[in-house]
Amino acid sequence: MSERIYNLSAGPAVLPEEVIRSSQEAMWNLSGTGIGVMEHSHRDKAFMAVIEKAESLCRKLAAIPADYDVLFLQGGASTQFFMVPMSFLGPDTTADYIVTGVWSQKAIAEAKRFGKVHVAGTSEEQSFSAIPAASAIRWSERPVYAHFTSNNTIFGTQWTNEPTPPDGVPLICDASSDIFSRPIDVPKYGLIYAGAQKNLGPSGVTLVIVRKDLVERGSSSLPTMLQYRTHAKEKSLYNTPPTFGIFVMAEVLAWIDRNGGLAAMEKQNQAKAKVIYDYLDRSSMFRTTAAAGSRSLMNICFRATTPELEDKFIAEAKKRGFSGLKGHRSVGGMRASVYNAFPPAGCDALVAFLSEFEKANG
Amino acid sequence: MSERIYNLSAGPAVLPEEVIRSSQEAMWNLSGTGIGVMEHSHRDKAFMAVIEKAESLCRKLAAIPADYDVLFLQGGASTQFFMVPMSFLGPDTTADYIVTGVWSQKAIAEAKRFGKVHVAGTSEEQSFSAIPAASAIRWSERPVYAHFTSNNTIFGTQWTNEPTPPDGVPLICDASSDIFSRPIDVPKYGLIYAGAQKNLGPSGVTLVIVRKDLVERGSSSLPTMLQYRTHAKEKSLYNTPPTFGIFVMAEVLAWIDRNGGLAAMEKQNQAKAKVIYDYLDRSSMFRTTAAAGSRSLMNICFRATTPELEDKFIAEAKKRGFSGLKGHRSVGGMRASVYNAFPPAGCDALVAFLSEFEKANG
Repeated sequence: MSERIYNLSAGPAVLPEEVIRSSQEAMWNLSGTGIGVMEHSHRDKAFMAVIEKAESLCRKLAAIPADYDVLFLQGGASTQFFMVPMSFLGPDTTADYIVTGVWSQKAIAEAKRFGKVHVAGTSEEQSFSAIPAASAIRWSERPVYAHFTSNNTIFGTQWTNEPTPPDGVPLICDASSDIFSRPIDVPKYGLIYAGAQKNLGPSGVTLVIVRKDLVERGSSSLPTMLQYRTHAKEKSLYNTPPTFGIFVMAEVLAWIDRNGGLAAMEKQNQAKAKVIYDYLDRSSMFRTTAAAGSRSLMNICFRATTPELEDKFIAEAKKRGFSGLKGHRSVGGMRASVYNAFPPAGCDALVAFLSEFEKANG
Repeated sequence: MSERIYNLSAGPAVLPEEVIRSSQEAMWNLSGTGIGVMEHSHRDKAFMAVIEKAESLCRKLAAIPADYDVLFLQGGASTQFFMVPMSFLGPDTTADYIVTGVWSQKAIAEAKRFGKVHVAGTSEEQSFSAIPAASAIRWSERPVYAHFTSNNTIFGTQWTNEPTPPDGVPLICDASSDIFSRPIDVPKYGLIYAGAQKNLGPSGVTLVIVRKDLVERGSSSLPTMLQYRTHAKEKSLYNTPPTFGIFVMAEVLAWIDRNGGLAAMEKQNQAKAKVIYDYLDRSSMFRTTAAAGSRSLMNICFRATTPELEDKFIAEAKKRGFSGLKGHRSVGGMRASVYNAFPPAGCDALVAFLSEFEKANG
């Protein structure tokens, strides 16, 4: 790791070192043009090649069908929280939401500004420690869409398989924290959105994968920038896009591709998470807070037997080169975020340190 | 210039080479933290220091008073085109706009979705080759705000002094293409917005300087992300901001500061533009399209005697290491964008090449 440490931050998060190196080079001189990637007009050939590469790698890795648009927007998931209902929901229609944590709740709060919201399922009574069982989901009569959050960074839970809404109801997913960490069956979805800053690149780019009929169905009386059709029609170049972030995303996607694609990512993510969960399951000091069957492969949330031990653990871990282990302020404890780019050796090193700490303080 | 060429792009545009070098370093390891700037959580101390540096340098350089908020948002000027009227304009109120080109027209199109628009002045009859005279501006009875575009990239015109709306009417400015290229008298303004990608950094960050009473006046029934108060209250950290873009902006601002601040930028920009305009004024082949008194110091638009000579000039210039000289597709001709970071030596070199070309083809 040379002068770099283990970064377990929930996001913005660790990037592949090869991607950082190629980004440094391109920043000075992109593809021999004599101009750095941040300084190229978004309309010139060199940048057009970058955004086309980003799109075609997305399509290849996730096998995105031709009847879907791939958009590179700004504003993060927080902007999609309102852009989705603003486009598709009205005062006389209902959207179904499944609540699995803070981000689902924030999405609902924005949807309520535009129309009716039906909570089709929630794990709030279990303090969001689990994903609701398929049998517990109750869809409304005729929802205009069904929304869920595929991975919950704060509670360390993740859907194994996406929920199945009634026939014809578009499934919409906030996949910000697990996009491209495993294969995704795009034809099951109407719209998938994800802030880039966990598995895809730096913050400031939002990937949106949306079925073309939904693009057309969206309200056309909205501000130009808030209509998906604007960005679909102009291939994300209606206005100046976040060019550097799109470049880094293309580099990350190429890195995923070189390393075997989404199936290989999933296999490695399973192996990485297993090393840590296995230790937590046999520890007498540490335990994971996510229910069996709902455990996230991305964010591993855990507690120690006392808050004092947690503080001590986080402080000593930091000294030993493990950064970002403090849990979200709303839940406390610890969180190890091990996205695609987090190295397997880092998981082994963390377990070695957990074990050492437990022996010394047990 | 080593392996880099002269980049006269209208935006994204050339950045100071020192800034590129420090950004490359920080991308690997920010301030000795062992984590690159793109990979730091936006909530950790290292990034908090970055965003605080960006804000404090903005405040220092432009002498921004304490009753103004400085915000780092996403979505560019195109997002401000609707966010401004969405916040302040309603069906029964009027906003005044001065039309000096395409960007003003786009801003008006979005404002019309929310309320009434009065065109207080326009140079459309002169094909936007000039800035309207102060004596030609006719304000409406009681506008909720007055909006203008300080520099017009497509037509190469720039306001010398800002317009003066009636007492108590907030002046709102799209300063995307000349922000911090000269001193700005912030207390004259209610709100100033600027996409970063000309004088401030990479695309994907929007600087907004807004008087606190306007923040409070904005509609509070809008989506959370579209209320200025959300970002003012949370110091631009309500959601994950474009962290890398803000870092680069802080580096650019520090570069401006080291080089004498906005007064020194203005002096150098005047000298740089003068070299080119002086040549165009004495040339028999080339002439500038902007009217005297309205000439932009940022974007120098010019024509040759025939379209054939223009094509030949642009092609030969490219071979000689001058990139981005083609005028906007809507007006044709040539455009030399010479923002803060474009070196004076590049202006001299361009004039030498113009002269050589004129001699060879005259």
